[in-house]
Amino acid sequence: MNAQLDNLAIELPSWAFGNSGTRFKVFGTPGTPRTIEEKIADAAMVHRLTGMAPSVALHIPWDRVDDYGALGSYAAEHGVRLGTINSNTFQDDDYKFGSLTHTDKTVRQKAIDHHLACIEIMEQTGSRDLKIWLADGTNYPGQGDIRGRQDRLAESLATIYQHIGPGQRMVLEYKFFEPAMYMTDVPDWGTSYAHVSGLGERAKVCLDTGHHAPGTNIEFIVAQLLRLEKLGSFDFNSRFYADDDLIVGAADPFQLFRIMFEVIRGGGLAPGSDLALMLDQCHNVEAKIPGQIRSVLNVAEMTARALLVDTEALTAAQESGDVLTANAIVMDAFYTDVRPAVAQWRTERGLPADPMRAFAESGYQNTIDAERVGGTQSSWGA
Amino acid sequence: MNAQLDNLAIELPSWAFGNSGTRFKVFGTPGTPRTIEEKIADAAMVHRLTGMAPSVALHIPWDRVDDYGALGSYAAEHGVRLGTINSNTFQDDDYKFGSLTHTDKTVRQKAIDHHLACIEIMEQTGSRDLKIWLADGTNYPGQGDIRGRQDRLAESLATIYQHIGPGQRMVLEYKFFEPAMYMTDVPDWGTSYAHVSGLGERAKVCLDTGHHAPGTNIEFIVAQLLRLEKLGSFDFNSRFYADDDLIVGAADPFQLFRIMFEVIRGGGLAPGSDLALMLDQCHNVEAKIPGQIRSVLNVAEMTARALLVDTEALTAAQESGDVLTANAIVMDAFYTDVRPAVAQWRTERGLPADPMRAFAESGYQNTIDAERVGGTQSSWGA
Amino acid sequence: MNAQLDNLAIELPSWAFGNSGTRFKVFGTPGTPRTIEEKIADAAMVHRLTGMAPSVALHIPWDRVDDYGALGSYAAEHGVRLGTINSNTFQDDDYKFGSLTHTDKTVRQKAIDHHLACIEIMEQTGSRDLKIWLADGTNYPGQGDIRGRQDRLAESLATIYQHIGPGQRMVLEYKFFEPAMYMTDVPDWGTSYAHVSGLGERAKVCLDTGHHAPGTNIEFIVAQLLRLEKLGSFDFNSRFYADDDLIVGAADPFQLFRIMFEVIRGGGLAPGSDLALMLDQCHNVEAKIPGQIRSVLNVAEMTARALLVDTEALTAAQESGDVLTANAIVMDAFYTDVRPAVAQWRTERGLPADPMRAFAESGYQNTIDAERVGGTQSSWGA
Amino acid sequence: MNAQLDNLAIELPSWAFGNSGTRFKVFGTPGTPRTIEEKIADAAMVHRLTGMAPSVALHIPWDRVDDYGALGSYAAEHGVRLGTINSNTFQDDDYKFGSLTHTDKTVRQKAIDHHLACIEIMEQTGSRDLKIWLADGTNYPGQGDIRGRQDRLAESLATIYQHIGPGQRMVLEYKFFEPAMYMTDVPDWGTSYAHVSGLGERAKVCLDTGHHAPGTNIEFIVAQLLRLEKLGSFDFNSRFYADDDLIVGAADPFQLFRIMFEVIRGGGLAPGSDLALMLDQCHNVEAKIPGQIRSVLNVAEMTARALLVDTEALTAAQESGDVLTANAIVMDAFYTDVRPAVAQWRTERGLPADPMRAFAESGYQNTIDAERVGGTQSSWGA
Repeated sequence: MNAQLDNLAIELPSWAFGNSGTRFKVFGTPGTPRTIEEKIADAAMVHRLTGMAPSVALHIPWDRVDDYGALGSYAAEHGVRLGTINSNTFQDDDYKFGSLTHTDKTVRQKAIDHHLACIEIMEQTGSRDLKIWLADGTNYPGQGDIRGRQDRLAESLATIYQHIGPGQRMVLEYKFFEPAMYMTDVPDWGTSYAHVSGLGERAKVCLDTGHHAPGTNIEFIVAQLLRLEKLGSFDFNSRFYADDDLIVGAADPFQLFRIMFEVIRGGGLAPGSDLALMLDQCHNVEAKIPGQIRSVLNVAEMTARALLVDTEALTAAQESGDVLTANAIVMDAFYTDVRPAVAQWRTERGLPADPMRAFAESGYQNTIDAERVGGTQSSWGA
Repeated sequence: MNAQLDNLAIELPSWAFGNSGTRFKVFGTPGTPRTIEEKIADAAMVHRLTGMAPSVALHIPWDRVDDYGALGSYAAEHGVRLGTINSNTFQDDDYKFGSLTHTDKTVRQKAIDHHLACIEIMEQTGSRDLKIWLADGTNYPGQGDIRGRQDRLAESLATIYQHIGPGQRMVLEYKFFEPAMYMTDVPDWGTSYAHVSGLGERAKVCLDTGHHAPGTNIEFIVAQLLRLEKLGSFDFNSRFYADDDLIVGAADPFQLFRIMFEVIRGGGLAPGSDLALMLDQCHNVEAKIPGQIRSVLNVAEMTARALLVDTEALTAAQESGDVLTANAIVMDAFYTDVRPAVAQWRTERGLPADPMRAFAESGYQNTIDAERVGGTQSSWGA
Repeated sequence: MNAQLDNLAIELPSWAFGNSGTRFKVFGTPGTPRTIEEKIADAAMVHRLTGMAPSVALHIPWDRVDDYGALGSYAAEHGVRLGTINSNTFQDDDYKFGSLTHTDKTVRQKAIDHHLACIEIMEQTGSRDLKIWLADGTNYPGQGDIRGRQDRLAESLATIYQHIGPGQRMVLEYKFFEPAMYMTDVPDWGTSYAHVSGLGERAKVCLDTGHHAPGTNIEFIVAQLLRLEKLGSFDFNSRFYADDDLIVGAADPFQLFRIMFEVIRGGGLAPGSDLALMLDQCHNVEAKIPGQIRSVLNVAEMTARALLVDTEALTAAQESGDVLTANAIVMDAFYTDVRPAVAQWRTERGLPADPMRAFAESGYQNTIDAERVGGTQSSWGA
Repeated sequence: MNAQLDNLAIELPSWAFGNSGTRFKVFGTPGTPRTIEEKIADAAMVHRLTGMAPSVALHIPWDRVDDYGALGSYAAEHGVRLGTINSNTFQDDDYKFGSLTHTDKTVRQKAIDHHLACIEIMEQTGSRDLKIWLADGTNYPGQGDIRGRQDRLAESLATIYQHIGPGQRMVLEYKFFEPAMYMTDVPDWGTSYAHVSGLGERAKVCLDTGHHAPGTNIEFIVAQLLRLEKLGSFDFNSRFYADDDLIVGAADPFQLFRIMFEVIRGGGLAPGSDLALMLDQCHNVEAKIPGQIRSVLNVAEMTARALLVDTEALTAAQESGDVLTANAIVMDAFYTDVRPAVAQWRTERGLPADPMRAFAESGYQNTIDAERVGGTQSSWGA
């Protein structure tokens, strides 16, 4: 178990440390970062306590700085590195009716240029992945030409992909709905897969666990995309209803367990795997830093449980048609309390046995509450 | 048909004329009102062109003014009147963990007091209905005590209800989810019904067409609540996925037709009916005033279609178990193009045959675009 | 924990031991009972191994016998007793367009008479509960008059309720859809609640965990109905999509845990509680008797976990708005491996530590496979 | 409009004329066919009255005969031809745990051989399409190895595809769930697309309108698959909840309109298009032959409405960001009553203006009710 846990690296999103909310209200909290440096400091704290969160994803323009080299050094000093670059083509007025899919070539070019700028940033930060989540879509039947939008999307993606360097990747995220309410231009894994298949080896799919229709069997998609060698990365979170962006594993820990089981089954934690695991969450009502710690622990613990599955016995039960035994083997792993073992994994590596408690006792929150006064708290808008 | 169309009165929400959006972005548009007076002026324009939107709902505190008497006069001068008062207990920091359900009595009292203030406003505006939509709920299992929250909710509602005057009503809206992501304190019609049943005759249920679980048969709920004499009002809008707040009838016109059929079946358009029909929508990407006009027309046209159902023949087909004929009778009404008849209804009343074109030709939008410069455009925040 | 586990009694449905399937195929298996006596023998085996399944629900007419007194004695000899009587008004051709809601009074009377016959059986079996699950509904808009059907339903239920004896109860089950595809006459808890509220104290709601719209928060309904003193019984099973009737806890064990937590919170396991827990499942592809054993164990284990919640600490965390701690307290209970403790509970009572293994080693299956040759295997049809 | 309506050919499924139902009950009706010849006679009646249903799909083994040449002649004499061959690997006991995906090579080979037998039938019937709908899947986590099943599926499909003749096609259907309740081996269009893309040009996707997750935007998938040149055929029906198999257009006529709009937009009705339109429905409670007539009419009428969309004006509105006008152009077509125009299309071709009435007046139903006495009525089992 430990060897594979050693391979577990969960990237933290810078924006999880900023304020977030619903369309109804964004609640602010003391200590919320005002700058990307403060976000990195918070993320580094999560890594210091868990040992499993070595990198921080940036969101452009929210995390734009003048000197990315300096930012990388700042991160390194704090024990983490800069990770995935996330583009944003949904907050300019120009993008009201689309970005990479827009009928107006000028707007498409602007959106393409934004991605090229992101690739330049990647070269400075040493990031491997450019993640594209498109908010493009329409709210009403007739508002857009579904087919034409796909054609323009394909063309825009091809242009961007030409600039993806040899050591870089483009990961294309899909989402069932929101902010578009009728038609989303990349609504499902099939669409993302069709696009990245046409582009080349360094184009992959990003699977956000909250971006599916109700009832979707997500672990199936994980298994399928790993089989097709097109699963690039995860955006982890959890949901009861829509894209709720709750703490990963909070809504349905058994689902997270099944997902991690398929990740392992498909080689996603094997040495050499280039599968990226990332959190993408909102801590609307709970404390942000411990919210991220809890999320990392949830992924770790469900991974540890998934690693306990007796796969030989499982195969035997499957091949004999013994449904109850096969299911029991899986459930036995899920029902085993791995928390002591994972705590031991941490203490063996000089990490606190209980990261949540260690954070509470660290005084870190009090410090930032006191220090981070004035300025504008970061949120999705900035 | 015409007599019942004459009974059709669709209240407009003041906030539909302000900006709205998703958690990702709120797009502003020229001409957006800065004040409640400007919202009323826009709403009055909708009524002037459709003849079916005689009142405007207010949202407190968004539409708070010093002199509600003056506001009522202003509305009257514009040919409309002030309608339902909508309370708001979801945008103060105090309400982060609940309002009428909060564990802290101080917060509950604040929320109760807000409703009492709304009732005072109702007395000044002559409004009949206090509408309570609660954003209360929790995001994580364990965050709140489901049972305790219900008990506190019942107590709070009872306190408010004591202040509801003899000519007034309290309507309690339910919502499946959002902004709460795990548990909403009034998630379904059953909960709303259980509460208002316990309160008294002047407490009723408000049905928002976008607030249900996927697949819910909404017309069944309409029929049931009318049967139980507890359907107080509608919040009309439409949705493909969640609470999308699209133009009513845009996503599934046949569903709107079925809803209106049950409204008629249950006496909701009969003389003396106290059922209130209201829009509650967001025009995130489309023009707001014509968006409201279109919505009023959609309700009118689907009502007109529903009125065409040959109910005698339908009953005969139902009683004989002739499924196809019964269905065909309903579909025949739905497939009939009533637009000419509804246009004639308008011209007979001195209204424009085509309100959408009349608005486009009126120059109203250009005028407000030019006049409403400076200030802060209204949105959900204000 | 042990005291409340002692209160746990999970009724088994006779039909779970017969064949079942989908509309596409029913697979038969060796050893399937041909008679109600054989079903009872199988159910008794489950109780012998788990100590928590002391009664067997009957389905009329599937389990009709000439002498219910003799059947009760047979059950007693096997260590179990006869439980809930389930009516069936969905398999006669007369019921194609409804039973208790049918427009034809003759059909309604036939359906009412069937329930009166069930009540007579209850008197002979000593059963407390008459459970009514109605398949009534329509497949197409217009096929039936929603409102009229409700009125007839209310009248039919009132007639039946008049015959419910002082020590008896009527429990009315609701179901979102299936077999009706457009409108179900009792589709949600609100409808069931509205009807049973109008009838009297001995009319209650039956909650089948598989009978809800996607995403429905079931534990909320549990809490609400217990609060309203109208939760009569559970039909336990689990589902990923629709009314899948899988083994309870198999699809989402955390949900089952949350449900049992609310059952405990609401007094459902307290001494004197009249809440009935029952399984209602299909073992389409897995072995039936161990399928039932596994189900009983799942309920027991999730109950044991729910009993571990530190409710005092939870209340403190809730009242302080400490979302993460409140959630962690709940998750800590869920993540604890209670299987050793529940095994010990069993061994202390002279039961096998591992009922699944005990069954496998018992030779029971081999015996019935050999003995039950010829005749017609029981299924939903008989 | 008429030219494209001339291209409209809707294949009827032989099994729609047999009995069908839910897992709870299959209702029989007078006049139900006992043989494939009687099914063909009924289908021919639908074509005679509508002029748009020139072929009949067969289901093997339900429609197995000794002499397919003779069957083809029989069909031709009745004015129709034999169409798609549908395989069946879900009703043999061997397939309890899978067919093309089974772990046991013997079972896989049996399932492959069944498809090869179907291809042989295709050669005798002159059918172009082999349609594969797989019921394969699992009910419980752990029951099967998701990845291994995909690999075996790919291998089995490749073997079958090798036998697909130059003028033939293989269409692979996907389905969200049912009969499998946890994991379906071909659950979504992405999976079907990934498989058929790997096979070759004559492998395509079959889209059944009832086989999606709740809320799925089906017209998007239509547009996408036409764009990818991989949409082979439709199975038309409608649903409110799951795979309800109701009359196409009955649940959401506007959705059917949008689907047909994308079919037209993507060239699916253009000369030379090889897109196949087929019904796949169950008439559980309504009369079967008029149920099929109604279905054909629904497709025709929604196609006619979709053909009315002013696509030039639509494009202009889309490009100018005029959401309301773009939507209005689409809705204007949908709201237009095309029934007179479609009736005229029929009368111009010597067909009855009102096929439903023509059927009622034909006496056909009385004739078959009288003639088809004795024997075993066809249903899904035979």
